[in-house]
Amino acid sequence: MKVLASKRVYEGRVINLRVDTVTGNRGQHDMEIVEHSGAVVVIAQPSPDEIVLVRQHRHAIGEDTWEACAGGIDAGETPEAAAIRELREETGFRAHNMRRIWSAYSAPGFCNELLHFFHTDSWDVGETEPDAEEEIEIATFPLKRVLEMIERDELRDAKTQVAVLWALRQHTTHS
Amino acid sequence: MKVLASKRVYEGRVINLRVDTVTGNRGQHDMEIVEHSGAVVVIAQPSPDEIVLVRQHRHAIGEDTWEACAGGIDAGETPEAAAIRELREETGFRAHNMRRIWSAYSAPGFCNELLHFFHTDSWDVGETEPDAEEEIEIATFPLKRVLEMIERDELRDAKTQVAVLWALRQHTTHS
Repeated sequence: MKVLASKRVYEGRVINLRVDTVTGNRGQHDMEIVEHSGAVVVIAQPSPDEIVLVRQHRHAIGEDTWEACAGGIDAGETPEAAAIRELREETGFRAHNMRRIWSAYSAPGFCNELLHFFHTDSWDVGETEPDAEEEIEIATFPLKRVLEMIERDELRDAKTQVAVLWALRQHTTHS
Repeated sequence: MKVLASKRVYEGRVINLRVDTVTGNRGQHDMEIVEHSGAVVVIAQPSPDEIVLVRQHRHAIGEDTWEACAGGIDAGETPEAAAIRELREETGFRAHNMRRIWSAYSAPGFCNELLHFFHTDSWDVGETEPDAEEEIEIATFPLKRVLEMIERDELRDAKTQVAVLWALRQHTTHS
Protein backbone atom coordinates (compact mmCIF):
# COMPACT_ATOMS: atom_id res chain seq x y z
CA MET A 1 0.00 0.00 0.00
CA LYS A 2 1.28 3.46 -0.97
CA VAL A 3 0.10 6.82 0.39
CA LEU A 4 -0.63 9.21 -2.50
CA ALA A 5 -1.82 12.16 -0.39
CA SER A 6 -2.32 13.00 3.29
CA LYS A 7 -4.48 15.80 4.69
CA ARG A 8 -5.10 16.86 8.30
CA VAL A 9 -8.80 17.79 8.02
CA TYR A 10 -9.38 18.68 11.70
CA GLU A 11 -7.23 19.52 14.71
CA GLY A 12 -9.02 19.17 18.03
CA ARG A 13 -8.44 19.19 21.77
CA VAL A 14 -8.22 15.39 22.25
CA ILE A 15 -7.89 14.09 18.68
CA ASN A 16 -7.01 15.17 15.15
CA LEU A 17 -8.48 13.72 11.96
CA ARG A 18 -6.24 12.90 9.00
CA VAL A 19 -7.38 11.54 5.65
CA ASP A 20 -4.86 9.56 3.59
CA THR A 21 -5.44 8.66 -0.04
CA VAL A 22 -3.85 5.24 -0.52
CA THR A 23 -3.40 2.82 -3.38
CA GLY A 24 -2.86 -0.93 -3.21
CA ASN A 25 -3.43 -4.13 -5.18
CA ARG A 26 -7.08 -3.32 -5.64
CA GLY A 27 -7.16 0.41 -6.40
CA GLN A 28 -7.26 3.80 -4.74
CA HIS A 29 -9.33 4.96 -1.76
CA ASP A 30 -9.40 7.38 1.17
CA MET A 31 -8.72 6.23 4.75
CA GLU A 32 -9.68 8.25 7.81
CA ILE A 33 -7.14 8.17 10.65
CA VAL A 34 -7.95 9.49 14.11
CA GLU A 35 -4.72 10.78 15.67
CA HIS A 36 -4.42 10.55 19.48
CA SER A 37 -1.37 11.08 21.69
CA GLY A 38 -1.92 7.95 23.80
CA ALA A 39 -3.42 7.16 27.18
CA VAL A 40 -2.85 5.20 30.37
CA VAL A 41 -5.10 2.74 32.21
CA VAL A 42 -4.48 2.12 35.92
CA ILE A 43 -5.55 -1.18 37.48
CA ALA A 44 -5.74 -0.07 41.13
CA GLN A 45 -6.28 -3.00 43.51
CA PRO A 46 -6.54 -2.50 47.29
CA SER A 47 -6.63 -6.32 47.52
CA PRO A 48 -6.13 -9.06 44.88
CA ASP A 49 -9.89 -9.63 44.47
CA GLU A 50 -10.94 -5.96 44.24
CA ILE A 51 -10.52 -3.09 41.76
CA VAL A 52 -11.11 0.66 42.02
CA LEU A 53 -13.37 2.05 39.28
CA VAL A 54 -14.44 5.61 38.51
CA ARG A 55 -17.84 6.70 37.22
CA GLN A 56 -18.22 9.66 34.89
CA HIS A 57 -20.42 10.94 32.10
CA ARG A 58 -19.18 9.96 28.63
CA HIS A 59 -20.69 12.42 26.17
CA ALA A 60 -19.51 10.49 23.07
CA ILE A 61 -21.78 7.55 23.99
CA GLY A 62 -24.40 9.46 26.02
CA GLU A 63 -23.91 7.27 29.09
CA ASP A 64 -22.48 7.31 32.61
CA THR A 65 -19.86 4.57 32.81
CA TRP A 66 -17.85 2.71 35.43
CA GLU A 67 -14.30 2.44 34.08
CA ALA A 68 -10.78 1.76 35.29
CA CYS A 69 -8.94 4.99 36.08
CA ALA A 70 -7.54 6.32 32.77
CA GLY A 71 -6.53 9.42 30.90
CA GLY A 72 -4.38 10.98 28.22
CA ILE A 73 -0.60 11.28 28.28
CA ASP A 74 0.53 14.93 28.34
CA ALA A 75 3.21 16.25 25.94
CA GLY A 76 6.66 15.24 27.17
CA GLU A 77 5.23 12.96 29.88
CA THR A 78 6.22 9.30 30.25
CA PRO A 79 3.38 6.75 30.41
CA GLU A 80 4.39 5.89 34.00
CA ALA A 81 4.27 9.54 35.08
CA ALA A 82 0.85 9.87 33.40
CA ALA A 83 -0.41 6.78 35.26
CA ILE A 84 0.70 8.21 38.62
CA ARG A 85 -0.82 11.63 37.78
CA GLU A 86 -4.15 10.31 36.44
CA LEU A 87 -4.64 8.08 39.49
CA ARG A 88 -3.91 11.06 41.77
CA GLU A 89 -6.21 13.43 39.84
CA GLU A 90 -9.16 11.04 39.50
CA THR A 91 -9.05 9.19 42.84
CA GLY A 92 -6.72 11.21 45.10
CA PHE A 93 -4.52 8.11 45.51
CA ARG A 94 -0.75 8.76 45.78
CA ALA A 95 0.63 5.50 44.39
CA HIS A 96 3.55 3.81 46.17
CA ASN A 97 4.16 1.52 43.19
CA MET A 98 3.21 1.51 39.50
CA ARG A 99 4.02 -1.58 37.45
CA ARG A 100 3.66 -1.61 33.67
CA ILE A 101 1.56 -4.53 32.35
CA TRP A 102 1.32 -4.19 28.56
CA SER A 103 -0.07 -1.94 25.82
CA ALA A 104 -3.01 -2.04 23.41
CA TYR A 105 -4.38 0.01 20.54
CA SER A 106 -8.02 0.86 21.30
CA ALA A 107 -9.18 0.81 17.64
CA PRO A 108 -6.27 0.07 15.26
CA GLY A 109 -8.54 0.00 12.19
CA PHE A 110 -8.93 3.78 12.21
CA CYS A 111 -7.18 5.27 15.28
CA ASN A 112 -3.59 5.32 16.60
CA GLU A 113 -4.49 5.68 20.30
CA LEU A 114 -2.17 3.38 22.27
CA LEU A 115 -3.28 2.47 25.82
CA HIS A 116 -0.56 1.65 28.38
CA PHE A 117 -1.83 -0.59 31.19
CA PHE A 118 -0.36 -0.22 34.69
CA HIS A 119 -1.01 -1.91 38.04
CA THR A 120 -0.75 -0.55 41.57
CA ASP A 121 -1.72 -2.13 44.88
CA SER A 122 -0.44 0.42 47.40
CA TRP A 123 -1.16 4.14 47.89
CA ASP A 124 -1.90 6.97 50.32
CA VAL A 125 -5.28 8.68 50.01
CA GLY A 126 -5.37 12.45 49.35
CA GLU A 127 -7.57 14.98 47.58
CA THR A 128 -8.77 14.45 43.98
CA GLU A 129 -7.97 16.99 41.22
CA PRO A 130 -10.52 16.37 38.46
CA ASP A 131 -10.18 17.90 34.99
CA ALA A 132 -12.53 20.74 34.05
CA GLU A 133 -15.07 18.52 32.29
CA GLU A 134 -14.94 15.59 34.73
CA GLU A 135 -17.28 14.95 37.62
CA ILE A 136 -16.15 11.65 39.02
CA GLU A 137 -17.49 9.11 41.50
CA ILE A 138 -15.06 6.50 42.91
CA ALA A 139 -15.79 3.02 44.27
CA THR A 140 -14.06 -0.25 45.02
CA PHE A 141 -15.69 -3.38 43.54
CA PRO A 142 -15.06 -7.10 43.96
CA LEU A 143 -13.60 -8.36 40.64
CA LYS A 144 -16.28 -11.08 40.45
CA ARG A 145 -19.00 -8.42 40.74
CA VAL A 146 -17.40 -6.40 37.89
CA LEU A 147 -17.25 -9.52 35.73
CA GLU A 148 -20.99 -9.99 36.31
CA MET A 149 -21.58 -6.37 35.27
CA ILE A 150 -19.59 -7.03 32.05
CA GLU A 151 -21.51 -10.25 31.35
CA ARG A 152 -24.82 -8.35 31.77
CA ASP A 153 -23.71 -5.53 29.40
CA GLU A 154 -23.66 -3.12 32.36
CA LEU A 155 -19.95 -2.30 31.88
CA ARG A 156 -19.22 -1.86 28.17
CA ASP A 157 -15.69 -0.42 28.14
CA ALA A 158 -13.02 -2.48 26.39
CA LYS A 159 -10.01 -1.20 28.41
CA THR A 160 -11.80 -1.94 31.70
CA GLN A 161 -12.69 -5.42 30.42
CA VAL A 162 -8.98 -6.03 29.70
CA ALA A 163 -8.10 -4.67 33.17
CA VAL A 164 -10.63 -6.85 35.01
CA LEU A 165 -9.87 -10.04 33.04
CA TRP A 166 -6.13 -9.46 33.60
CA ALA A 167 -6.68 -8.97 37.36
CA LEU A 168 -8.94 -12.04 37.61
CA ARG A 169 -6.24 -14.09 35.90
CA GLN A 170 -3.58 -12.91 38.39
CA HIS A 171 -5.92 -13.83 41.19
CA THR A 172 -6.58 -17.28 39.72
CA THR A 173 -2.88 -17.86 39.13
CA HIS A 174 -1.93 -16.78 42.66
CA SER A 175 -4.68 -18.57 44.57
CA MET B 1 -23.75 19.08 30.77
CA LYS B 2 -25.69 20.84 27.99
CA VAL B 3 -24.93 20.80 24.24
CA LEU B 4 -24.95 24.37 22.86
CA ALA B 5 -24.00 23.49 19.26
CA SER B 6 -23.22 20.38 17.22
CA LYS B 7 -21.40 20.29 13.88
CA ARG B 8 -20.52 17.33 11.61
CA VAL B 9 -17.08 18.47 10.42
CA TYR B 10 -16.22 15.39 8.31
CA GLU B 11 -18.12 12.47 6.77
CA GLY B 12 -15.92 9.55 5.80
CA ARG B 13 -16.06 5.96 4.65
CA VAL B 14 -15.59 4.30 8.07
CA ILE B 15 -16.12 7.20 10.49
CA ASN B 16 -17.58 10.70 10.75
CA LEU B 17 -16.26 13.48 12.99
CA ARG B 18 -18.70 15.63 14.99
CA VAL B 19 -17.74 18.54 17.22
CA ASP B 20 -20.14 19.46 20.05
CA THR B 21 -19.83 22.69 22.00
CA VAL B 22 -20.90 21.83 25.55
CA THR B 23 -21.28 23.69 28.81
CA GLY B 24 -21.18 22.27 32.33
CA ASN B 25 -20.38 23.26 35.91
CA ARG B 26 -16.98 24.49 34.89
CA GLY B 27 -17.57 26.39 31.65
CA GLN B 28 -17.82 25.90 27.90
CA HIS B 29 -15.63 23.81 25.59
CA ASP B 30 -15.62 21.80 22.36
CA MET B 31 -15.66 17.99 22.34
CA GLU B 32 -14.68 15.88 19.33
CA ILE B 33 -16.84 12.79 18.78
CA VAL B 34 -15.85 10.08 16.30
CA GLU B 35 -19.03 8.49 14.96
CA HIS B 36 -18.86 4.80 13.97
CA SER B 37 -21.66 2.39 13.09
CA GLY B 38 -20.37 -0.46 15.29
CA ALA B 39 -18.38 -3.62 14.73
CA VAL B 40 -18.24 -7.30 15.59
CA VAL B 41 -15.41 -9.43 17.02
CA VAL B 42 -15.49 -13.20 16.46
CA ILE B 43 -13.72 -15.50 18.92
CA ALA B 44 -13.28 -18.54 16.65
CA GLN B 45 -11.99 -21.59 18.54
CA PRO B 46 -11.39 -24.93 16.82
CA SER B 47 -10.64 -26.32 20.32
CA PRO B 48 -11.00 -24.77 23.82
CA ASP B 49 -7.28 -23.95 24.04
CA GLU B 50 -6.87 -22.43 20.55
CA ILE B 51 -8.04 -19.30 18.71
CA VAL B 52 -8.04 -18.28 15.05
CA LEU B 53 -6.36 -14.92 14.38
CA VAL B 54 -6.00 -12.92 11.17
CA ARG B 55 -2.99 -10.82 10.18
CA GLN B 56 -3.38 -7.66 8.13
CA HIS B 57 -1.75 -4.29 7.60
CA ARG B 58 -3.22 -1.55 9.79
CA HIS B 59 -2.42 1.76 8.11
CA ALA B 60 -3.62 3.86 11.10
CA ILE B 61 -0.82 2.47 13.28
CA GLY B 62 1.66 1.59 10.51
CA GLU B 63 1.92 -2.05 11.61
CA ASP B 64 0.93 -5.56 10.58
CA THR B 65 -1.17 -7.04 13.39
CA TRP B 66 -2.54 -10.38 14.49
CA GLU B 67 -6.14 -9.78 15.62
CA ALA B 68 -9.32 -11.69 16.26
CA CYS B 69 -11.56 -11.74 13.19
CA ALA B 70 -13.53 -8.45 13.21
CA GLY B 71 -15.26 -5.90 11.03
CA GLY B 72 -17.93 -3.26 10.71
CA ILE B 73 -21.68 -3.85 10.84
CA ASP B 74 -23.38 -2.96 7.54
CA ALA B 75 -26.48 -0.75 7.40
CA GLY B 76 -29.57 -2.78 8.34
CA GLU B 77 -27.46 -5.78 9.42
CA THR B 78 -27.80 -7.41 12.85
CA PRO B 79 -24.57 -7.89 14.85
CA GLU B 80 -25.01 -11.69 14.61
CA ALA B 81 -25.37 -11.55 10.80
CA ALA B 82 -22.27 -9.32 10.64
CA ALA B 83 -20.31 -11.80 12.78
CA ILE B 84 -21.24 -14.70 10.47
CA ARG B 85 -20.42 -12.60 7.37
CA GLU B 86 -17.09 -11.21 8.66
CA LEU B 87 -15.89 -14.68 9.68
CA ARG B 88 -16.83 -16.01 6.23
CA GLU B 89 -15.18 -13.09 4.35
CA GLU B 90 -11.93 -13.03 6.38
CA THR B 91 -11.37 -16.75 7.03
CA GLY B 92 -13.71 -18.62 4.67
CA PHE B 93 -15.31 -20.34 7.69
CA ARG B 94 -19.08 -20.99 7.43
CA ALA B 95 -20.07 -20.93 11.10
CA HIS B 96 -22.45 -23.58 12.44
CA ASN B 97 -23.01 -21.61 15.66
CA MET B 98 -22.50 -18.00 16.76
CA ARG B 99 -23.04 -17.16 20.43
CA ARG B 100 -23.12 -13.56 21.65
CA ILE B 101 -20.74 -12.90 24.57
CA TRP B 102 -21.00 -9.18 25.48
CA SER B 103 -20.33 -5.70 24.10
CA ALA B 104 -17.71 -2.99 24.65
CA TYR B 105 -17.03 0.55 23.50
CA SER B 106 -13.52 0.70 22.03
CA ALA B 107 -12.79 4.31 23.14
CA PRO B 108 -15.82 5.83 24.97
CA GLY B 109 -13.95 9.06 25.76
CA PHE B 110 -14.18 10.26 22.16
CA CYS B 111 -15.78 7.56 19.97
CA ASN B 112 -19.14 5.75 19.91
CA GLU B 113 -17.88 2.54 18.26
CA LEU B 114 -19.55 -0.40 20.04
CA LEU B 115 -17.90 -3.82 19.60
CA HIS B 116 -20.13 -6.90 19.84
CA PHE B 117 -18.20 -10.03 20.87
CA PHE B 118 -19.27 -13.43 19.53
CA HIS B 119 -17.99 -16.98 19.94
CA THR B 120 -18.04 -19.91 17.54
CA ASP B 121 -16.45 -23.35 17.82
CA SER B 122 -17.84 -25.14 14.75
CA TRP B 123 -17.68 -24.33 11.03
CA ASP B 124 -17.15 -25.61 7.49
CA VAL B 125 -14.15 -24.24 5.59
CA GLY B 126 -14.74 -22.45 2.25
CA GLU B 127 -13.22 -19.64 0.20
CA THR B 128 -12.36 -16.24 1.75
CA GLU B 129 -13.89 -13.01 0.37
CA PRO B 130 -11.60 -10.20 1.57
CA ASP B 131 -12.58 -6.52 1.34
CA ALA B 132 -10.89 -4.38 -1.29
CA GLU B 133 -8.22 -3.02 1.07
CA GLU B 134 -7.58 -6.21 3.00
CA GLU B 135 -4.85 -8.74 2.39
CA ILE B 136 -5.26 -11.26 5.14
CA GLU B 137 -3.24 -14.15 6.55
CA ILE B 138 -5.03 -16.66 8.81
CA ALA B 139 -3.60 -18.89 11.54
CA THR B 140 -4.67 -20.90 14.58
CA PHE B 141 -2.73 -20.20 17.79
CA PRO B 142 -2.68 -21.84 21.22
CA LEU B 143 -4.29 -19.37 23.67
CA LYS B 144 -1.26 -19.58 25.96
CA ARG B 145 1.02 -18.58 23.06
CA VAL B 146 -1.21 -15.55 22.28
CA LEU B 147 -1.10 -14.50 25.95
CA GLU B 148 2.71 -14.60 25.76
CA MET B 149 2.56 -12.41 22.63
CA ILE B 150 0.35 -9.92 24.54
CA GLU B 151 2.68 -9.94 27.56
CA ARG B 152 5.66 -9.21 25.25
CA ASP B 153 3.83 -6.31 23.52
CA GLU B 154 3.74 -8.35 20.29
CA LEU B 155 -0.07 -8.24 20.12
CA ARG B 156 -1.30 -4.78 21.00
CA ASP B 157 -4.99 -4.86 20.08
CA ALA B 158 -7.48 -4.29 22.91
CA LYS B 159 -10.39 -6.27 21.39
CA THR B 160 -8.13 -9.30 20.79
CA GLN B 161 -6.85 -9.03 24.38
CA VAL B 162 -10.48 -9.14 25.61
CA ALA B 163 -11.16 -12.11 23.31
CA VAL B 164 -8.10 -14.09 24.46
CA LEU B 165 -8.55 -13.37 28.17
CA TRP B 166 -12.25 -14.32 27.88
CA ALA B 167 -11.35 -17.59 26.13
CA LEU B 168 -8.61 -18.42 28.66
CA ARG B 169 -11.11 -17.89 31.45
CA GLN B 170 -13.64 -20.28 29.85
CA HIS B 171 -10.87 -22.82 29.54
CA THR B 172 -9.83 -22.38 33.18
CA THR B 173 -13.43 -22.58 34.36
CA HIS B 174 -14.15 -25.72 32.36
CA SER B 175 -10.95 -27.65 33.10
